[in-house]
Amino acid sequence: MTPADLVIHARWVIPVEPEGAILEQHAIVVRDGRILALLPSAEARRQYHAHTGVELPDHVLIPGFVNAHTHTAMSLLRGAAEDPSLTLSLPEPAWTTQSRWMSAEFARDGSELAMVRMLRSGTTCFNDMYFFPDVTAEAAQRCGLRACLGMIVTEAPSAWAGGAREYLAKGTALRDRHKDEPLLSFAFAPIAPCTMAASRLQEIRTLADELDVPVHAELNATAAEIQLSLQQHAQRPLAHLAALGWLTSNLIAVYMTLPTDSEIAGLARAGVQVVHCPESSLRLARGFCPLAKLLAAGVNVALGTGGSAFDMLAEMRCGALLAKAVVGDAAAVPPASALRMATLNGARALGLDQATGSLLPGKWADLAAVDMNVPECQPLYDPLSQLVYGASRRQVSDVWVAGRQLLRAGALTTLDQDAILARAARWQEPGRSATPEAASA
Amino acid sequence: MTPADLVIHARWVIPVEPEGAILEQHAIVVRDGRILALLPSAEARRQYHAHTGVELPDHVLIPGFVNAHTHTAMSLLRGAAEDPSLTLSLPEPAWTTQSRWMSAEFARDGSELAMVRMLRSGTTCFNDMYFFPDVTAEAAQRCGLRACLGMIVTEAPSAWAGGAREYLAKGTALRDRHKDEPLLSFAFAPIAPCTMAASRLQEIRTLADELDVPVHAELNATAAEIQLSLQQHAQRPLAHLAALGWLTSNLIAVYMTLPTDSEIAGLARAGVQVVHCPESSLRLARGFCPLAKLLAAGVNVALGTGGSAFDMLAEMRCGALLAKAVVGDAAAVPPASALRMATLNGARALGLDQATGSLLPGKWADLAAVDMNVPECQPLYDPLSQLVYGASRRQVSDVWVAGRQLLRAGALTTLDQDAILARAARWQEPGRSATPEAASA
Repeated sequence: MTPADLVIHARWVIPVEPEGAILEQHAIVVRDGRILALLPSAEARRQYHAHTGVELPDHVLIPGFVNAHTHTAMSLLRGAAEDPSLTLSLPEPAWTTQSRWMSAEFARDGSELAMVRMLRSGTTCFNDMYFFPDVTAEAAQRCGLRACLGMIVTEAPSAWAGGAREYLAKGTALRDRHKDEPLLSFAFAPIAPCTMAASRLQEIRTLADELDVPVHAELNATAAEIQLSLQQHAQRPLAHLAALGWLTSNLIAVYMTLPTDSEIAGLARAGVQVVHCPESSLRLARGFCPLAKLLAAGVNVALGTGGSAFDMLAEMRCGALLAKAVVGDAAAVPPASALRMATLNGARALGLDQATGSLLPGKWADLAAVDMNVPECQPLYDPLSQLVYGASRRQVSDVWVAGRQLLRAGALTTLDQDAILARAARWQEPGRSATPEAASA
Repeated sequence: MTPADLVIHARWVIPVEPEGAILEQHAIVVRDGRILALLPSAEARRQYHAHTGVELPDHVLIPGFVNAHTHTAMSLLRGAAEDPSLTLSLPEPAWTTQSRWMSAEFARDGSELAMVRMLRSGTTCFNDMYFFPDVTAEAAQRCGLRACLGMIVTEAPSAWAGGAREYLAKGTALRDRHKDEPLLSFAFAPIAPCTMAASRLQEIRTLADELDVPVHAELNATAAEIQLSLQQHAQRPLAHLAALGWLTSNLIAVYMTLPTDSEIAGLARAGVQVVHCPESSLRLARGFCPLAKLLAAGVNVALGTGGSAFDMLAEMRCGALLAKAVVGDAAAVPPASALRMATLNGARALGLDQATGSLLPGKWADLAAVDMNVPECQPLYDPLSQLVYGASRRQVSDVWVAGRQLLRAGALTTLDQDAILARAARWQEPGRSATPEAASA
């Protein structure tokens, strides 16, 4: 008998690689935080002696979701700042309004609230874009989640930094401190790059190449952004950025709701990573991402939630449903593609596909279990179809990151949910939300 | 002190009428199954002596959802028959494939499974279209749900009836038997009306007028249906039906994904009831329902699920989000409109708005409570916004129909969920699903 730290037996395992595979009565064997083997349960019981054994008799076990675009701290703002006139314009004003709340404390409380939501809905890795990434990095480490932190860049001063030079300095210093942490990675996260000077964009590109980190930016996110780029640069955003050397496989382009056919071909040629945020795109009336076209062109498309829901099951369902109507084909984006987008494609977008995103032996044991023994998923003809079209977040029972169990039968093991909710509620108190602004005035 | 059967105190009550009202710390007083009063909790405690008191300290109390288009028995087929080539064509072939399963037993097991899902997600009334409506009527009565049963009509023989004449005879006889039941109502439910002879359509219209019942039909549901109508009648479906006197306020037109602007104006003039099924429309790539345009034209638009999910919270969110993107306005279909569509507009579509759909005194006490004390809905700035954009079905804690509690703290009081799930699972057994066909061969 070979010793193992953890053996998880599940009714169904969907490893994402190979695509579409559904393995019944299989087990994942974990040692030193990594997947040692994926094999039939009966064989696992014969071959491995498990320090900890877990039985999931009614569950689908999948790679944990990779949420490829988040603003974790904005979890605190849901329902508080919904003036659509802001959201239809460029990102800058929407960000500026947040100076009212922005502080290290806000970033901590919001990141932790988002982590509660992410773990409870099966997410094991997120790609964040917000002020105070140092605070979010610490929160992710305390919690045990895998995170790609945005080294945020803007010319606008905030409570986090006074101008682009300081943003860059603080971001790169943060990365230097944490670059050997196995759960953390980093990306430059410029806000509204099309409003930045060409020299700044070149500086960011050069730094990203030197440090070999991705650049994470919202692009082609609104018609207004495209219009502004045409006015300022006489080019659409992608053409403008292409001329500055930005279109590489290290670019994580979020939203991409309004690309032309030739832009789609260009994204595919350059290997640009695209992140589709279905619910956020609909809610802010950004336009329709041509998902099926992007996938057909060979573009790697991941899924993200943006700033509020953090529910990748909901995004996966919405993305798959929406894609069918947009392209007029009910067979477009089948369940296996949707799950791949929510897991492996996200890992690939972040440059982490050797580490996570599927259940290949050697990868970290980043896992989520979904209980299918609920009336909404019975009778169960096809676990993959029911997972994508029928399951909801409350069915997520267990989550592991690098073999460490962070959600156990619906209970968080590293986060104090009651304390986090109590701190979140305090941001609603009248006067409280104005405190940082008052303090800095 | 005035005696009352039931007083429910909730942190928030959203009565739907007046639209947008959110009442904090209010109570609903119920006597003889009907709403006697809606008033501040403190006053209710002074004025009413309740036989049963219920405290919902973290909950939103709303009118129960009205699901304005269901095929309840098809709950058993989810994931079993997903060939998209069927769903892109006319309804008829998709229905025909069901002859494999169709039987009274199938209708009973499927209806009961759907009722489990509906109650657990806050639905108190549904508008059904399926074979064996007698079986579904009995199941609804046993369960205590409010139901509008479809007197299904098609020329194609099935296990339920041999031809249109028998469908009509069995349907009207069923209605005669049950027409005084307070929880039941009836509508004619012709399948694919544009494929029927004009004389049959006129017969249905005449019968509907005589009996004063609605006609419930899928219309403008696919591009193929419109194409067929143009070929067969040299008219689009609505023009064809208008010439036969079908466009009245007694017509419940389901899907309506591809109306022209002049058709929208015609629907508004005639007072036709429209049912939008957002997730089903997307999934089957039927096209985009111009929801905001229909509402702006003054059309009464309700929401329905079709045959699988039965989750009106999900439809409400999907419908509201989708409408914004379709019309390019993030302010379109705000949360209050979405909730109204899922409740009062549904009741109105079924001719039941004097009975249910809002919390006006005198209506039946058809209620659903949603627990907002979950991390996904905190902090809670706006209960209406969080209900529509943030809540999921598992937060539905309590449901009453006509003052009778059918879901209590998440547990069903009239349905045996375990037995229903066990019966549902039996339809998966190999050979079992072919039994009715084999029996009739």
